[in-house]
Order: sequence, then C-alpha cells, then structure tokens
Amino acid sequence: MAVTTGGIIKTVGITIAFGLISEVCYQSYLWWKKKYRTPIPKKKKQECEVLFFPDNRVACKSHFIGEGCGKLGCHFSHEPNSLSKLFEYLTKARKSLDVCVFVFTCSSLADILVEAHKKGVVVRVITDDEQVDVSNSQIWKLRKEGIIVRTDRSSFFMHHKFVVVDQAFLMNGSFNWTNQAITGNQENLMITYSTDLVQQYSQEFDKLWKQFNPQNFIS
Amino acid sequence: MAVTTGGIIKTVGITIAFGLISEVCYQSYLWWKKKYRTPIPKKKKQECEVLFFPDNRVACKSHFIGEGCGKLGCHFSHEPNSLSKLFEYLTKARKSLDVCVFVFTCSSLADILVEAHKKGVVVRVITDDEQVDVSNSQIWKLRKEGIIVRTDRSSFFMHHKFVVVDQAFLMNGSFNWTNQAITGNQENLMITYSTDLVQQYSQEFDKLWKQFNPQNFIS
Repeated sequence: MAVTTGGIIKTVGITIAFGLISEVCYQSYLWWKKKYRTPIPKKKKQECEVLFFPDNRVACKSHFIGEGCGKLGCHFSHEPNSLSKLFEYLTKARKSLDVCVFVFTCSSLADILVEAHKKGVVVRVITDDEQVDVSNSQIWKLRKEGIIVRTDRSSFFMHHKFVVVDQAFLMNGSFNWTNQAITGNQENLMITYSTDLVQQYSQEFDKLWKQFNPQNFIS
Repeated sequence: MAVTTGGIIKTVGITIAFGLISEVCYQSYLWWKKKYRTPIPKKKKQECEVLFFPDNRVACKSHFIGEGCGKLGCHFSHEPNSLSKLFEYLTKARKSLDVCVFVFTCSSLADILVEAHKKGVVVRVITDDEQVDVSNSQIWKLRKEGIIVRTDRSSFFMHHKFVVVDQAFLMNGSFNWTNQAITGNQENLMITYSTDLVQQYSQEFDKLWKQFNPQNFIS
C-alpha cells in the first residue's frame, strides 16, 4: 500500500487528462448547442411584415392567386407589390377569416372572400353601417353570396381595419379595402404572427360580433 | 516505480471524485443559467400592448401626466383608460416624436406635443393637407409653437395614423387624433417595441418627410 513516485505521477496525469477531456466535451456541447439549438434570428424577423401603399398599379388577381392570367396586354400589374402580397396573405386562410373594415368597395378583395367562403372557410365581416350603401360597396355582394356581415348601427364609426386569418396571423393598419387606398393614398398594413396580438384582436372581433348581433337592435 | 494495489485504488478514487465534482459544477451552472440568464417570457409579452377605443369618458390629462388635478368635481376621468395610456406613452419621449396622422383635432394630444417640443424633444408632424383647416384642427397651434408640420398636397389621403417615439417604439392603428375617436368610434392603437417594425415605420416617415418637403412644391 506504499505511495510511490510513479503512483503520484500517474494519479496527477490521469486527473489532468480527465479534466482536459471533460473540458473538451463541455466546449463541444456548447458549440453544438450554439450551432443547432439557438433560435435563428431570421425566423423572428419573418414574424412580421409591413405593406405600404400606394402601389403604382393594381395587381392582377388572376396572375397572383388565380389560374394565371392569359390576357394579352393585361393592364393590371404582374410585378409583386403590396396588393399582390395582400392577395396572397388572404388566400392562406383554411379555417376562418374575421374581417373588420370601415370601408369596403374593392371588388377583387370581395371576390377573395367569396371564393374562401365557397371553399368552406368561415368568413365573418364587420363594417360601418353608413358605409354599406356607398358607391361600389361590396357588402351586398358578400351578403348575396351568403357571407354574414354585421354593422355597428351607430352614428359613430366602426373604424377598425383589421383581419384575423385562421387565428394564426393578424393584418392591421390604416388600409381600408378601397381602390383609392391601393393606388392613391399613403397607407400601411402590418402583418404579424404574434400570438399575443392575434389573441387580443380576435377577442375584440368576437366582442363586436356579439355586440352587433341584429337581435340586439330589435325594438 | 512499481504499480501497487493502493496506487490503483487511489487513482480510481481520485478519478471518480473528480468526475463527480465536475458533474456537480456543470449541473450547478445549468441551474444558475436557467434561473438567472434565460429570458423571462413575461418580458416578451410586455413588448406589445393594444389600446381599444371608445373610452367611456375622456381621461384627465393633468391627473395622469401633469402636476395632478386639483379641480373639485373634475368632469374628466381619473380612472386609467386607453387615452390615459396614450398620454403616458407619448410623454415617454426624450429625443424624438415622429407623428404621422390623418386627422388631428384633439387639443390635449396637441398640448403633449407642444410640451415635448418645449422640453427639447424633436417633434415632426405629417398630416393630410385637406385636414389642416377642418374645424378644431390643431395644426396651426403646433405651427405657432414652432413645430414643423408637413402635408401631402395631394387629392389623395395621407391616411397613416402612426407615431414613432425615440426610435424605440411604434404606435399604429386606426386611431385618428380626434375626440370622436376617443369616446365615439371603434378604434385600435397597437404599441410595439419590435425593432424591425420600428425601423420600417421610421424609414417610411423619413421617406414621406422628404417627399413632402415644401421645397418640392415650389413651381
């Protein structure tokens, strides 16, 4: 059981070797974790996008989300712009489209809602009662196709301009659904996948949907 | 230099002990990292807030951001609401307030901009040219106090309703700066600290600020 010089050297040697191996393993783990497990910032950036208007020209709906545009000399834009992106975002809907918009006179946006409705997407629309009968209003087309539209029935404005798609993302800003907003005005429409924001706007939509139930206005 | 049984036992013992100590240290580090270094989810949630309107009553500016309200029977609200939060967000400004709003007729919000301007905050306002002379417009008060206001000088609308504060956070939504928007309309105003969004709206503001420079309209 005597402690020899050889024994001590061996002990120290093994201890240092073990320490080194342990450190190498730990640093390798950190490197692996950094490389493969840290969330990539790019992903976070993709969680929101902003569409600014006006566009130079109105985007061709058929070209971007239809069966393609076969028209020779089509006078709509085939270059991606804010409206073409809006088309694409709206056609992502698989389950629900909750649209809360002050003025709705743009026919191509109404067509997208009708097409979604026909595919089984639950489309609900809230708008301002005084905007229902303005020139080019799309509200009656929506109602004719079976989409339920509710209004505020108030002298004040139902002034929101937001959409919640599939309870998954929100579009919100100054943008009314009009041709003037597309190619004339300075407007913005922000798209976000923030669950917190989506939830808050969904709750607001549901609150207004109940509040503007026609049953509440029967006197 | 002979290898004894005692030497081997000692070597194995030290190795195991070192391994155990190393493991304890690593687990302690992980525990510490989890406890003190992992970002708290709550913090992320605080990065955005939504103010929905209408408020039941107009908030008392003096009560929330002034020297306190000494009025007996003050007919403004002393309960926190969406407008009182808007007051508080605007008074956070230390360096800059970039305001881009379609209609601006609310005097208490104009007062906040004037007070910020007097404290040295750089206040810039963009609005719609056709809204400058409407009843109760606050634009001339701002200009009188030395705040530069630029307009679109177009028959289309400068329809944005957003503010960038200190390049740090963004407020954006359907909310015009009017009394009707505060206590009448259905409106929303989203506040976000997302650097990505703040940057995009700042760039849009700078673009419009240059575009609406009066020098560009001299014929």
